Amino acid sequence: MLKEPTNGSWVCVGHQVSGWFVVLCLLAGAGCAAGHSRLDRLAWEQSRLIDLTHSFGADTIVWPTEQDFRLVLQQAGETPGGYYYASNRLEMAEHGGTHIDAPIHFSRGGQTLDQVPIEHLVGAGVRIDVTAQCARDRDYLVTIQDFEQWEAEHGQIPTRTIVLVDTGFSRYWPSRQQYLGTDLRGPEAVPALHFPGLHPEAAAWLVRERQIKAVGIDTASIDYGQSNKFETHVALLSQNVPVFENLSNLRDLPDKGFDVIALPMKITGGTGGPLRVIAVLSPSH
Amino acid sequence: MLKEPTNGSWVCVGHQVSGWFVVLCLLAGAGCAAGHSRLDRLAWEQSRLIDLTHSFGADTIVWPTEQDFRLVLQQAGETPGGYYYASNRLEMAEHGGTHIDAPIHFSRGGQTLDQVPIEHLVGAGVRIDVTAQCARDRDYLVTIQDFEQWEAEHGQIPTRTIVLVDTGFSRYWPSRQQYLGTDLRGPEAVPALHFPGLHPEAAAWLVRERQIKAVGIDTASIDYGQSNKFETHVALLSQNVPVFENLSNLRDLPDKGFDVIALPMKITGGTGGPLRVIAVLSPSH
Repeated sequence: MLKEPTNGSWVCVGHQVSGWFVVLCLLAGAGCAAGHSRLDRLAWEQSRLIDLTHSFGADTIVWPTEQDFRLVLQQAGETPGGYYYASNRLEMAEHGGTHIDAPIHFSRGGQTLDQVPIEHLVGAGVRIDVTAQCARDRDYLVTIQDFEQWEAEHGQIPTRTIVLVDTGFSRYWPSRQQYLGTDLRGPEAVPALHFPGLHPEAAAWLVRERQIKAVGIDTASIDYGQSNKFETHVALLSQNVPVFENLSNLRDLPDKGFDVIALPMKITGGTGGPLRVIAVLSPSH
Repeated sequence: MLKEPTNGSWVCVGHQVSGWFVVLCLLAGAGCAAGHSRLDRLAWEQSRLIDLTHSFGADTIVWPTEQDFRLVLQQAGETPGGYYYASNRLEMAEHGGTHIDAPIHFSRGGQTLDQVPIEHLVGAGVRIDVTAQCARDRDYLVTIQDFEQWEAEHGQIPTRTIVLVDTGFSRYWPSRQQYLGTDLRGPEAVPALHFPGLHPEAAAWLVRERQIKAVGIDTASIDYGQSNKFETHVALLSQNVPVFENLSNLRDLPDKGFDVIALPMKITGGTGGPLRVIAVLSPSH
């Protein structure tokens, strides 16, 4: 967002001045003359958007104990009125495909999906690349040391960041066998789940030491497949930090320097729900 | 979005230079030193977000021929594992509550919901206030003249704008009688629908003369209640201009100077679906 101060000029944000910089100022200034929204429009037009969402369909991966997503055809064709018309119905679990967990999912009395503040769902993002670790070990738990290593390279994770954990597992989607570690269904599948997750201690550290807004991951659960206590969910959701699961395309992100916009369906009393999540990259990326 | 050029400094966008302007540059520059995402973070933190979405629940208004939205409780309580767990299932029409119409909804062979480019769903917005006209006439059709009047005051609607039509009808939500003009259900309700909409000629003008990205409205349909040919839907959707319906809180927007971010659930083959839509206002508003 560009900041529009009260006297009608635009805020300049810069700490180096060079020749092209002045040229850009002039070009942008010319654009300004067309109206206030002109610059915002240019900002969006010049930014690259990356969709971090798997599309919902018959092959959408859901938790082994859940029923599959269903799109039920209602109508598709010409009508007596002379126009074409098509529509469907949806039947689905809150927690399948690319979705959000609201605090109440694992925290009694916690925020329901409609109560999660939208301010927690948009903001600067970082990507933590643990693809190598997870390629070696399907049961990998992302540690505090993984975040400290990221910080040694990039500086401290700012407060109110949205942290995206890239395990590389979205490349297996939609193969249940490869993504979840099993293509069994029902309760007997749960002990056979093998995919990486976030260590509960690392989750608590992100909340306590870095005051993050939200966490996302490209696996079916922020707790690893072998978890049976879901302590990472509890560590995050009990502190009103929402969780994004089954993300896609994280490999297309830089390590930092992007915004995340994660807008879930708004469900009164929802414990979670389908999420559309995108990243906004500045033109230099 | 702030633009980060390749040499690591930040793009200055301004056409007036004054003392406080330089001070702001220095302050922002100091912020830069903390890391690239610092400024984006500040931008989000300083912007005001407005949720333009009605929440889905038992009282969600759907088209009279559709079934109501249902949230089906699966589980809510302590588990044998010692943790709290709650989850639900959803059953719903694609076109109820705050939702998007994808081009295929009224245009054979048109884009399905997963095919709508996300670039059409984010961008600078304008609000066209027709609340007075619609208070006088429930069957009001928004005309080209309404847009020309807006332009006389604010300048031409830039290309690739997202146009939001504020009829004031969201104040009636969730009363079906007041919002739709009838609380009848089923096919016999359709002739009794009375709410305002966008004139097909105005829709065609917005597409042809202003190359808009998308249109939204705070009624149940972009065609007015008395329509039986849905020509406005056809005018927009046949040109791949998606439509947002049942919007909320448009009264809280300025006439211009804001961004719209409209992220629908991503449904393979969907003709539309639930939409979470927010506006981003710069701090001066």
